[in-house]
Amino acid sequence: MKILHTADWHLGKLVHQLHMTEDQAYVLNRIRALIIEEQPDVIIIAGDLYDRAVPPKEAVELLNNTLTEMIFDLGIPVLAITGNHDSSDRLHFGSEMFRRQQLYLQTHIEGCTTPVTLQDEFGSVHFYLIPYMEPADARRAFEDDAIVTHHQAMEAVLTNIQATMNEQDRHVLIGHAFLAGGMESESEERLSMVGGTPYIDVDLFSAFDYVALGHLHQPQRVKHEHIRYAGSILKYSFSEANHKKSVTMVTLNGSGIDRIEQHPLSPKRDMIVKEGYLQEFLEGEDAGSEDYVHIKLLDEGQLLDPMGKLRKVYPNALSLERVGFLGNTTDTVRHIQERKKMSHLDLFQSFYENVKGKEMDENRREYIAEVIQSLMKEERDQ
Amino acid sequence: MKILHTADWHLGKLVHQLHMTEDQAYVLNRIRALIIEEQPDVIIIAGDLYDRAVPPKEAVELLNNTLTEMIFDLGIPVLAITGNHDSSDRLHFGSEMFRRQQLYLQTHIEGCTTPVTLQDEFGSVHFYLIPYMEPADARRAFEDDAIVTHHQAMEAVLTNIQATMNEQDRHVLIGHAFLAGGMESESEERLSMVGGTPYIDVDLFSAFDYVALGHLHQPQRVKHEHIRYAGSILKYSFSEANHKKSVTMVTLNGSGIDRIEQHPLSPKRDMIVKEGYLQEFLEGEDAGSEDYVHIKLLDEGQLLDPMGKLRKVYPNALSLERVGFLGNTTDTVRHIQERKKMSHLDLFQSFYENVKGKEMDENRREYIAEVIQSLMKEERDQ
Repeated sequence: MKILHTADWHLGKLVHQLHMTEDQAYVLNRIRALIIEEQPDVIIIAGDLYDRAVPPKEAVELLNNTLTEMIFDLGIPVLAITGNHDSSDRLHFGSEMFRRQQLYLQTHIEGCTTPVTLQDEFGSVHFYLIPYMEPADARRAFEDDAIVTHHQAMEAVLTNIQATMNEQDRHVLIGHAFLAGGMESESEERLSMVGGTPYIDVDLFSAFDYVALGHLHQPQRVKHEHIRYAGSILKYSFSEANHKKSVTMVTLNGSGIDRIEQHPLSPKRDMIVKEGYLQEFLEGEDAGSEDYVHIKLLDEGQLLDPMGKLRKVYPNALSLERVGFLGNTTDTVRHIQERKKMSHLDLFQSFYENVKGKEMDENRREYIAEVIQSLMKEERDQ
Repeated sequence: MKILHTADWHLGKLVHQLHMTEDQAYVLNRIRALIIEEQPDVIIIAGDLYDRAVPPKEAVELLNNTLTEMIFDLGIPVLAITGNHDSSDRLHFGSEMFRRQQLYLQTHIEGCTTPVTLQDEFGSVHFYLIPYMEPADARRAFEDDAIVTHHQAMEAVLTNIQATMNEQDRHVLIGHAFLAGGMESESEERLSMVGGTPYIDVDLFSAFDYVALGHLHQPQRVKHEHIRYAGSILKYSFSEANHKKSVTMVTLNGSGIDRIEQHPLSPKRDMIVKEGYLQEFLEGEDAGSEDYVHIKLLDEGQLLDPMGKLRKVYPNALSLERVGFLGNTTDTVRHIQERKKMSHLDLFQSFYENVKGKEMDENRREYIAEVIQSLMKEERDQ
């Protein structure tokens, strides 16, 4: 059985106020070409189909066209789950009807321990579709107050699944989660920190022949060959400039993994970081490139409208950093970069300490963690 | 063939800031009971499924559950169109997949001249699903700059349809439009007035055996027995207090209409207007009623917190009018009531004349009509 594994489409995404719809349509068209060439038996989309709960209508149209084409024109079953960016309640619309067309879209914990079973010449492959969940969702679903962390939530789901697994068959898990040991980028939204950490231990998944993950934007294995993030279909921030985006093609034989291949995805416009002097850029050879560019200027003095000038040669220059400017000491730059990596909670704590001149105590920290958590849940549930 | 005709569900509707979801779920459940009892062969929903382009998630859930149940549990095909309150682009999601399950949801002009054909013992019945459209939509679809009014837009659609009609068969049109001669309520959103009027002449529809309409909230025939608005499923404003809501059951024989019946819908809570003195209400016999009440107080003097007092006996009192209060001359009341009936354009014109002290010329009026039109389209297309 040949499985195409992709994730983190983030349709409706804005990068520096720019809609990525055209770039997303382009790269989804590349995936379509790959599907026609490779003829996988099933397509997995491991969450974050949309970038937000109420995506713009262009994103709705693109997802509709893409899924309709996969199901009807290409005739291949699709297994998809919601990620932390998707609204489970909104994406649930029509899912009963979609199932009869072989589009399996799992949006809630309820029912996620029942697999979708496909057959190949070796027998049954059971796919378990686990949407992104908050610990509170699992606590409610399993009526177990001891579930506090993301790890415990996944453990509860997997305990239920493993009780029904048949060792003769093969099992694939589809999840949207943060596995300990995975490499973050800046563009993944922080998961809730209730219960301490957002991490799930990779050892939980030892019973599965393949684990198809979404959430982290860089394609990667986590500790084992068969536990993988497909990565996003596009670079969604300059922190991903060095990523090589791909979809993962997994072939199962009778006993498990036979082969894993990564098929690179070429974007319509790349997202790159360039460093140099203004004059060099204006006279440079790659002028006119349509790529999205973050420019680090080495010039030290004042410059007149550098962005305006750069945009004449790089029409899609999106951001500018004056790394050589005397006003920007290296310390300031490093400080800003560090801030960008902080969680909402740490940022608030730092703000609090700045304003109050003293440390935030544990009670306050817990309280604020809950507030942030409930705000993020509200945003997600819109 | 037995046809159940309903329209104007307006899921997600707020009346005086109050969500109608519970009342809507209740009345949809009554319709479900009617379907089980009457066993229609097909269900028509003639537009305004939702009340707005991006409905709250509870409304999305209710529509999903209702349609899923009609299709799978009751096993009856559903023919639905978008109305002026719905977002065509958002409701389009999944519609290709829904068609294969006998849920036909027509959201755009493109393809609306191709009928959905069902069979009975007498032969074929062709259903034409015409979603709400702006004249500009038809102008674009038919590449005909002469289409300026709503009437011309519908005429263009029907000319295309009539060219392919087979006189041996029966034909049903499903539309969401304002037919000249229909009775308005206050709660229907005004349609765009570009091209002069929103009205469509009823004679356009003479070729059809039955015309199943949505938009006007009062169940009614328009000039002919077989041209009908099903009306909304609930009273959505106090201007509808005297309506009797219903669904329409139409039976076709081999040559056309055999029988038309209206099945009344009882709401969980009625919406009524009551007039009297405060003391009468507080001592009245129907205290404790859960109905939504608009109260017209006849008392003349000052009263201390009349709404607070009334809510103790009518927990769902939604609004209060001091018709007897000296501060409200009958003229003021009549003036306010007249304003409520004015179109956006007339309201603006009246405001303009009030501020400028002179009449608005035709150029300005046309310009403002276009602005209002494009704002309403933007809202609709969200």
